[in-house]
Amino acid sequence: MRRLFLWMAANAWLRTRIPKLWFSRRAVRRFMPGEDLASALAAGVGFQVEGLGTLYTRLGENLTRIEEADSVADHYRGVLDEIRERRLDGEISVKLTQLGFDLDVERTFHHATSLAAQAAESGKSFWIDMEGSPYTEATIAFYERMKSAMPNTAICLQAYLKRTAADVQRLIPLRPEIRLVKGAYAESPSIAYQTRHDVDANYLALCVSMLQAIRDGHPVRLALGTHDVRLIEQVAEHAAALGLPRTAFEIQMLYGIRMDQQRRLAREGYLVRDLIAYGEAWYPWYMRRLAERPANVLFALRQIVG
Amino acid sequence: MRRLFLWMAANAWLRTRIPKLWFSRRAVRRFMPGEDLASALAAGVGFQVEGLGTLYTRLGENLTRIEEADSVADHYRGVLDEIRERRLDGEISVKLTQLGFDLDVERTFHHATSLAAQAAESGKSFWIDMEGSPYTEATIAFYERMKSAMPNTAICLQAYLKRTAADVQRLIPLRPEIRLVKGAYAESPSIAYQTRHDVDANYLALCVSMLQAIRDGHPVRLALGTHDVRLIEQVAEHAAALGLPRTAFEIQMLYGIRMDQQRRLAREGYLVRDLIAYGEAWYPWYMRRLAERPANVLFALRQIVG
Repeated sequence: MRRLFLWMAANAWLRTRIPKLWFSRRAVRRFMPGEDLASALAAGVGFQVEGLGTLYTRLGENLTRIEEADSVADHYRGVLDEIRERRLDGEISVKLTQLGFDLDVERTFHHATSLAAQAAESGKSFWIDMEGSPYTEATIAFYERMKSAMPNTAICLQAYLKRTAADVQRLIPLRPEIRLVKGAYAESPSIAYQTRHDVDANYLALCVSMLQAIRDGHPVRLALGTHDVRLIEQVAEHAAALGLPRTAFEIQMLYGIRMDQQRRLAREGYLVRDLIAYGEAWYPWYMRRLAERPANVLFALRQIVG
Repeated sequence: MRRLFLWMAANAWLRTRIPKLWFSRRAVRRFMPGEDLASALAAGVGFQVEGLGTLYTRLGENLTRIEEADSVADHYRGVLDEIRERRLDGEISVKLTQLGFDLDVERTFHHATSLAAQAAESGKSFWIDMEGSPYTEATIAFYERMKSAMPNTAICLQAYLKRTAADVQRLIPLRPEIRLVKGAYAESPSIAYQTRHDVDANYLALCVSMLQAIRDGHPVRLALGTHDVRLIEQVAEHAAALGLPRTAFEIQMLYGIRMDQQRRLAREGYLVRDLIAYGEAWYPWYMRRLAERPANVLFALRQIVG
């Protein structure tokens, strides 16, 4: 099932045809307030009242022409303006391939540092998202380079990758900001844990590793990018055992998933940030959400069928 | 199934009658070379040739008369003499209740420090085993007290207990020697993780926590008391990510369980120690081994039936 949806996410022919044929916007709406930025920001204003921060990302992946990267960067500049104007506790998260990483690394670096600089003016961080394993090393190296230019740069790491334990150690001296996710691509058993059992164990271990570094005086901003509340509780128990407050880490969940838990955690004093994705290129992103949890598929089917 | 065997382990009536009625010695032999010390030591000599260390424990739990503790201590003094004489890479592991912990804590402390002192003469550690949760706090406090008298004292902690994360942090400054096991008693959900999934995640996280402390210069002797080779591999991957050698931790497995893995791991350069239990009071211990793994039960049934 998971493999099927991941294959569907990657398939170019399906990418252009499936959305119009199969999926009602109603089903997709579960995971996004709308296709345009205005809807995303409106949702963000509502969350702010409830004590939730936000993180904005426009859907869209690998570009084919570098000029597209310029317009993506322009778009995010506008997002940062809006965040500032509305005094939102909002940040942005960008895939490097959206900024032309496949085509022109220097231009990507220019765009990324310029967006990070603009975010820094409002005291916000600039998040680099993580993609499939062919990009892992290059993205981490890019992050290291960016950190020395713009210290407010943040990155996403994936707990299903075996290399992540070493990557965490590599990044800790840089005072990193890390969103740890389980990982949503199909990766080989030689480089990635395959079962939920193994991935979850690694996830908790990586968190404890970072919390211990925090306790020992190394500044790490740790964000748990997961909807697994049980796992979050285990992380919280370890944080408490290390003598750290609830605010030693934050929790980042996607718009539309476990909203009740997002609000409950925020009420209980945890830092919670809702990741709002928007845009027209939602197909591969939506397929990966379906691949993540059988419950998401059931929900989608119910919306489509009736 | 697990609960049934744990109940059988604790039941006093069954304890006196079942062994003679149901279980052939042949089935029990899977987990012990024999009921007497001589058989245990003979097995230890064989293991030494194969590069495996050993850890000896005489079965027997809660005493009813304090005089029995004196004879238990005498017995272990004899074991330490034999280990020294045979130049075995062997240590001893003792349950505090075997040394009278329920009856007279000071006498237990006297016996334990005297055994630890004798072990220290040969450069060996003295292991305190862990029992059910009513004993956890008292055992850890006892360990803290012993550590200042005899630094070669080692203790067992259980990954299924939620408190263990805090106990690890509490003990790290004492330069502890810790055998981490998953835990083999029936404990309540309020204090212990109940599923293999949660226990394994906590197990890995606790190991990574201790490995990171080791990397940061805190001396911790970490022994993985588990037969879960996959989990051991995950620990090994984290150790490597922290830049630690294979010998940063050791592996302790029970006699008769996964002997092929014990030998393989030793050949591959890991420190492996085989825990040899012996003695006539094998019934509750054997029931806990059956509770641990369905495969053990099948093996036992096959021995009894045919």
